[in-house]
Amino acid sequence: MTEARGFSQAEFEARLAHAQAAMAREGLDGLLVTTHPDVYYFTGFLTGFWESPTRPWFVLLPQAGAPVAVIPGIGAALMKKTWITDIRTWASPDLADDGVSLLADTLKEAIGSGRIGIPDGHESHLRMPVADFERLKRECGAVTITGDRGIVRALRLVKSEAEIAKIANACAIAGRAFDRVGEVAGAGDPLASVFRRFQMLCLEEGADQVRYLAGGAGPYGYSDVISPASEEPLASGDCLMLDTGLTWDGYFCDYDRNFAIGKPDPLVRSAHERLIEATYCGFAAVRPGATAADLFHAMDKVLTGGEARTDNGRLGHGLGIQLTEWPSLIPADETALVPGMVLTLEPGIATRDGNMLVHEENIVVTENGARWLSPLQEPAIRVLAI
Amino acid sequence: MTEARGFSQAEFEARLAHAQAAMAREGLDGLLVTTHPDVYYFTGFLTGFWESPTRPWFVLLPQAGAPVAVIPGIGAALMKKTWITDIRTWASPDLADDGVSLLADTLKEAIGSGRIGIPDGHESHLRMPVADFERLKRECGAVTITGDRGIVRALRLVKSEAEIAKIANACAIAGRAFDRVGEVAGAGDPLASVFRRFQMLCLEEGADQVRYLAGGAGPYGYSDVISPASEEPLASGDCLMLDTGLTWDGYFCDYDRNFAIGKPDPLVRSAHERLIEATYCGFAAVRPGATAADLFHAMDKVLTGGEARTDNGRLGHGLGIQLTEWPSLIPADETALVPGMVLTLEPGIATRDGNMLVHEENIVVTENGARWLSPLQEPAIRVLAI
Repeated sequence: MTEARGFSQAEFEARLAHAQAAMAREGLDGLLVTTHPDVYYFTGFLTGFWESPTRPWFVLLPQAGAPVAVIPGIGAALMKKTWITDIRTWASPDLADDGVSLLADTLKEAIGSGRIGIPDGHESHLRMPVADFERLKRECGAVTITGDRGIVRALRLVKSEAEIAKIANACAIAGRAFDRVGEVAGAGDPLASVFRRFQMLCLEEGADQVRYLAGGAGPYGYSDVISPASEEPLASGDCLMLDTGLTWDGYFCDYDRNFAIGKPDPLVRSAHERLIEATYCGFAAVRPGATAADLFHAMDKVLTGGEARTDNGRLGHGLGIQLTEWPSLIPADETALVPGMVLTLEPGIATRDGNMLVHEENIVVTENGARWLSPLQEPAIRVLAI
Repeated sequence: MTEARGFSQAEFEARLAHAQAAMAREGLDGLLVTTHPDVYYFTGFLTGFWESPTRPWFVLLPQAGAPVAVIPGIGAALMKKTWITDIRTWASPDLADDGVSLLADTLKEAIGSGRIGIPDGHESHLRMPVADFERLKRECGAVTITGDRGIVRALRLVKSEAEIAKIANACAIAGRAFDRVGEVAGAGDPLASVFRRFQMLCLEEGADQVRYLAGGAGPYGYSDVISPASEEPLASGDCLMLDTGLTWDGYFCDYDRNFAIGKPDPLVRSAHERLIEATYCGFAAVRPGATAADLFHAMDKVLTGGEARTDNGRLGHGLGIQLTEWPSLIPADETALVPGMVLTLEPGIATRDGNMLVHEENIVVTENGARWLSPLQEPAIRVLAI
């Protein structure tokens, strides 16, 4: 199946209209976005070139009228392929003035003596040098730069059907790769080699890029899920976990699978069954109006009987253009679920000797509950032949 | 050949000592770093988990004494494997206080009423929410937060032998993949498929990750080098370019190769020869004390006769932990070359119909001149069988 790349112009117009309505409500005269996810969301400008930190990129969304891209000249040709028509460029890198005065002039022209919001809340950052931001504030005249009141977060939190289809496609690609892990992992294979070869499987199955791969292995699971892969070979009896965030057309999946190398230890087998049970309970708790915290508690009850500890993290989160997005499945996150939100359910459980097992699935909130985006894992842990 | 991963503790101690000496010179009582490259540089903390924007990470380097990591609890196990011993964690994500008060308390304790510098210049950004940064400034008492006076830039600009070895290994991996492009690219192959399969080659040859892949194809080159790959099939006579930034142990290579699909057009052939000549001239101009601008002019003389136009960019740049780093090979960059700087030489040349060819190699500045890190390309363009 070939999924369609890109988005319709109508979809970008709708995103802008929603942003503009929110700006009107919040008393903002514009929004300024600077990061890849925000720029892609509003313009469709998709490039791996963001990997280079050298140049800043700016898109201004006025409260009325069309967006304005203020970008390095090297991006003009690609930006012209999007729906954006007002594109202003400078010869970047410019060590004396890397877009700051052009942006200040654009803000003064578009915003006058108004207020412009930048995303400034949780999980955000401003992708420009701090010294340039200070200079911008000095040079943009009567324009006031303030926070965006969560407008961008609120918009990106709820995905369109087209966005969900891209995430679903990323999930399907990863699912096909997970089904082939036996080709690349077995007793004696160093974990680092498994990581490389699993990325190859993801690409062969259709990923544009494998931006994230984590994992671990050991007789009772793994002690840490963010370390790079070691050269340690897998051993018979190990539990191997691979957690991938691959992208397709700019959207991520983010889920994992556990594998027993040969016969699983009874402790690992039962831990895995409990994780799947917790995932199902999280899924069953999803409905519009339930909160991120509700999903946490539904899973935590299975995992710990309801201790509600969050030492090292959360039991899931949003995803989309980024590997992780708001909300967080933690007791303190009262974000109300809305159809179109895409979430991970990510329960973890301690086994022994400081080890744990983690399981993760991706879902979308629907009118009636939820729908799986990742191909559902059975309670029994997958077993790889030795 | 198996290269050694990681760095010796002595190397981290030397980096810290250099930073501390620079702080003393600049009247700073500490540095605060927040991004993956800066944190990796000073601590050795290497993880793909930075792909998640949710959590902020902080490392404080006091003007005297040991660094302090102020990080989410999920990172504690991995940080404990580094040379850092003072590790302070909080249960992140915390929607009410995601490390801000812990960081403020740490700054107050370590810096008192002193000045702490953050990287704030060209190519930098602050990886924390703007609202949290404002709060930090309010809550850190008598501590003054200011720019880092370019200290981090100056340190990272000059690579150690161990860093150079990692970049050289990344280059060697890419070189082996480029030698196999004929396996994945020929007339009729969609560019998107070539991109996926070339990434697989890079992984098979030993890359940890392929974080960047750009390219283009057409009869007279390509009009833009930052677009994603299209489904357009390669045609006989096309010139295909692939430009990769793969990583090994946290360090990038960044260079490209051009390929003729079948017999190259004479225009493409001569453009390629000119690019290689420009690259050689850039290489020949490298010596300690020469400037980034000198390398620009050495190449530009071959390319344009010395027009010194920089509409869309530069003729090379630094690289290391990031795909692109300071300096920029542009007329305005007077950065003096020092042994240990790793650079790309990246000349481009217009062909016709708005198309161009770009060539790129990676070099390191030595006591006497320069040394190639990427395997040198001959003047004749590589030809792939149709």
